[in-house]
Amino acid sequence: MERAQQLKDLSSFMQDRGFVYGPSPEIYGGLAGFFDYGPLGKLLKNNVEAQIRKVFQKNGFFEVECPTVMPRIVWEASGHLGGFTDPLIKDAKGNSYRVDKLIEEHFLKNDLDFDSIKVDGATDEELLKIIADYKIKAPSGEDLIPEITKHNLMMKTTVGLDTESYNRPETATTTYLPFLRYMNFFRDKLPNGVFQIGKAYRNEISPRQYMLRMREFTQAEAQLMLFADQKNDFEKFEKVKDKKLPLWTAEMQEKGGSFINLEANFPGGVPLEKALEKKWLKNKAYAWTLALAYEVFIAMGIPQERIRLRQHNKDEMAFYADDAWDLEINLNTFGWTEVCGIHDRNDYDLSTHSKHSKKDLVAMKEDGTKEIPHILEIAFGTDRPTFALLDIFYDEKEKDEGKTKFDLPYRVAPIPLAVLPLTNKLHEQAYELYTQLQEDFICQYDKSGSVGKRYLRADSIGTPYCVTYDFDTLEDGCITLRDRDTGNQERVKITELKDRLKSLL
Amino acid sequence: MERAQQLKDLSSFMQDRGFVYGPSPEIYGGLAGFFDYGPLGKLLKNNVEAQIRKVFQKNGFFEVECPTVMPRIVWEASGHLGGFTDPLIKDAKGNSYRVDKLIEEHFLKNDLDFDSIKVDGATDEELLKIIADYKIKAPSGEDLIPEITKHNLMMKTTVGLDTESYNRPETATTTYLPFLRYMNFFRDKLPNGVFQIGKAYRNEISPRQYMLRMREFTQAEAQLMLFADQKNDFEKFEKVKDKKLPLWTAEMQEKGGSFINLEANFPGGVPLEKALEKKWLKNKAYAWTLALAYEVFIAMGIPQERIRLRQHNKDEMAFYADDAWDLEINLNTFGWTEVCGIHDRNDYDLSTHSKHSKKDLVAMKEDGTKEIPHILEIAFGTDRPTFALLDIFYDEKEKDEGKTKFDLPYRVAPIPLAVLPLTNKLHEQAYELYTQLQEDFICQYDKSGSVGKRYLRADSIGTPYCVTYDFDTLEDGCITLRDRDTGNQERVKITELKDRLKSLL
Repeated sequence: MERAQQLKDLSSFMQDRGFVYGPSPEIYGGLAGFFDYGPLGKLLKNNVEAQIRKVFQKNGFFEVECPTVMPRIVWEASGHLGGFTDPLIKDAKGNSYRVDKLIEEHFLKNDLDFDSIKVDGATDEELLKIIADYKIKAPSGEDLIPEITKHNLMMKTTVGLDTESYNRPETATTTYLPFLRYMNFFRDKLPNGVFQIGKAYRNEISPRQYMLRMREFTQAEAQLMLFADQKNDFEKFEKVKDKKLPLWTAEMQEKGGSFINLEANFPGGVPLEKALEKKWLKNKAYAWTLALAYEVFIAMGIPQERIRLRQHNKDEMAFYADDAWDLEINLNTFGWTEVCGIHDRNDYDLSTHSKHSKKDLVAMKEDGTKEIPHILEIAFGTDRPTFALLDIFYDEKEKDEGKTKFDLPYRVAPIPLAVLPLTNKLHEQAYELYTQLQEDFICQYDKSGSVGKRYLRADSIGTPYCVTYDFDTLEDGCITLRDRDTGNQERVKITELKDRLKSLL
Repeated sequence: MERAQQLKDLSSFMQDRGFVYGPSPEIYGGLAGFFDYGPLGKLLKNNVEAQIRKVFQKNGFFEVECPTVMPRIVWEASGHLGGFTDPLIKDAKGNSYRVDKLIEEHFLKNDLDFDSIKVDGATDEELLKIIADYKIKAPSGEDLIPEITKHNLMMKTTVGLDTESYNRPETATTTYLPFLRYMNFFRDKLPNGVFQIGKAYRNEISPRQYMLRMREFTQAEAQLMLFADQKNDFEKFEKVKDKKLPLWTAEMQEKGGSFINLEANFPGGVPLEKALEKKWLKNKAYAWTLALAYEVFIAMGIPQERIRLRQHNKDEMAFYADDAWDLEINLNTFGWTEVCGIHDRNDYDLSTHSKHSKKDLVAMKEDGTKEIPHILEIAFGTDRPTFALLDIFYDEKEKDEGKTKFDLPYRVAPIPLAVLPLTNKLHEQAYELYTQLQEDFICQYDKSGSVGKRYLRADSIGTPYCVTYDFDTLEDGCITLRDRDTGNQERVKITELKDRLKSLL
């Protein structure tokens, strides 16, 4: 209940301050799993995405943008048409439910041990057996008809008069397809990398968990493409070999070793070179890719101690995957939560699309032979990290004194700057200064209430700096610059203010 | 034919260099109206969108992000379900065609005067009469069945098991809906502004005109919300009143006055204050909004002489619109092309959604009365401007000498910087410098061919600066910095290079 209350407080903070509204469209009653980003939420999300772009670009990845709607043939090839489904069951009245959720709810409600049964990855027969054994009924009390159907999670549409098409369930598939075009751009050299940030859709029957399960969300997925034999002949690894990552291997998990134990044995994480030595990681390129994913989340402002990398065990892994790790963030509202997958997908994707399209998606090696490259993939979304920043840095410790804080790192603050006239008499001059600062900074003008109240208001949305225009300003041309975290105030000349702020932010 | 050839050359340049591929997905045969942005195209599009954000933000607008999928009720209210359609006709074999396109093609093919008939805005009866009068048949030669049906241009989908929904045909409608939330964010003050950049969908039967008619595209739409009586009590107008805009009024168009005549009478455009005086523009807020739209396109790098603002005549205008102008760009491949609409939409949108949602989308005036605000809207996309920059600045005058250029303004160049080792012997050092520069700039490393060839290659994708690492660099720590447009080369110390580039770019 603690967490439920926290989520309630957090989401009402987000709504009141203009971060996230929903479910959207609110005035028409809302559709579960859809949200609006308000002014502050969108600024925060843009900052998150800017950090992602920056990290990928400085590591040599190029962004691409592919359609969000693609014809049936693509999803047949990718396997989404057949396999991207949820199991549904009906009650006697014809209402449909997700089987796995029904079972989970039944166990929770009756205080049964959910870990004693297998639901994820269970066959239809196994699920029906649980329903029968535990006499599970529909929430309405109706009996369930013992028959499971598959509900495809893609949103189907039509292009032109009759081309069956789908809103994409991920960016990745659409990124793979122009592979030969990329090779032309990269002048036939491997390894190289591309990434895509864009919308994807997942038509869940009954989405829950607030922003963690959205039906429409923004994905960010990066692909490192390389030949199989380049995985251990990977120059860039040298630069990260001493880097420490919070690795929690499948073996450690099986042995019951908690993540905390790992931390005790390897303070600050496992050096990548050590991880290779111990065979916890299979090759240099994959190790580098893990480090890159970690760097992305650090750049966004997620605190190091909130992140861990958890290896999939064999049951979790896709049949074609060579290795798979999740990056998890420890949220106040949901605990450890998967926010990113780092997968060695082998040559699976390019092979599949070669077969279905009858185009050779191959590249030429130095010895003149042609080979289908492998793909190492970093797959995540930008909504969860945006939510994570709100979850982690929203601080209501002093709420009872009318103070809520949003302590996120300055570089991702939605509004870096607020301009405040000491009194309304100084409105004209202060507003003129605000207009000038708008040329270079996203800033807010605030003239209502006492300056103290306005500082609190700025703190509550994480604004790092307040510029106060007072009566002395008229004489000495200096304003008061106040720092959010230290509370320090310094007088700065208006003529030097822009440079000062640029160096601070 | 001249223009057709130009388009062919331009699109193959775009494809070869990695700007735009399509129709996408190419390896599966492609679906008309869908395109991929390759590495350079996406960088260019991002730069265009960054300029849009910058201009709107410094003018006090806040970005929002709303779902691209919304339920039927929204589109019933907005009128898109009923009115957003194309007229279709079938032939005896059951094939469907767009009536207006069939007529246009018939007239073009037979050298008839298309201006002598009315197709846009014609009733079904009028269209059928043209078909009959001119004995128009299907392209296959089949007779047409004289019956017109309406093809809705929205892509329909389903959310959950059965909620009829649509991929949005525009961002604007989705932006209006959280109006009351925005008022809370703006602490109930008007005027204020929001904007949204995001995907929209238009399911045309047979899209043509390359990137000008996409089935999936990125829109950018901004809304200035204000009370009716604030339209002429609009403080910000003072700052733009002397600004000159290339205004081509409906009256001038009717009188047969060409746009060139306007230019002769008002060199550099019509000052906004003059335009109000002459009643060419109805109010200060609308004049300011027009100036803002113009500023956006100038910021993107579209040359002033390629832009004009054309007022809609009464026939073109929506019934609820108070005034409407298009911003047009003169393209090499398509001539004057509409890229943006600036519309005074009155209180139409908020009234409609108030009615349908039964929520009062009103704001309180200073006197305590409540009123539905008006919306002045700037509606455009980011694909057309991106294409416009390619169209305008791609320069193949010296193509026969193996030189193509892409002369776009430095601030929107996809790759600002290329790093070149003079010879392969300097690869290691030059690559290290490249790695350092990547921390701050998007740059490309190029070591194949002579330096001259590499300069040409950089010119052909519009890269403003080349950094050449030569043998002297080893001794004096200076590289050669070459400017794309002037060809000037200067020696710059590596230790000062980042600062120098930052001040240049």
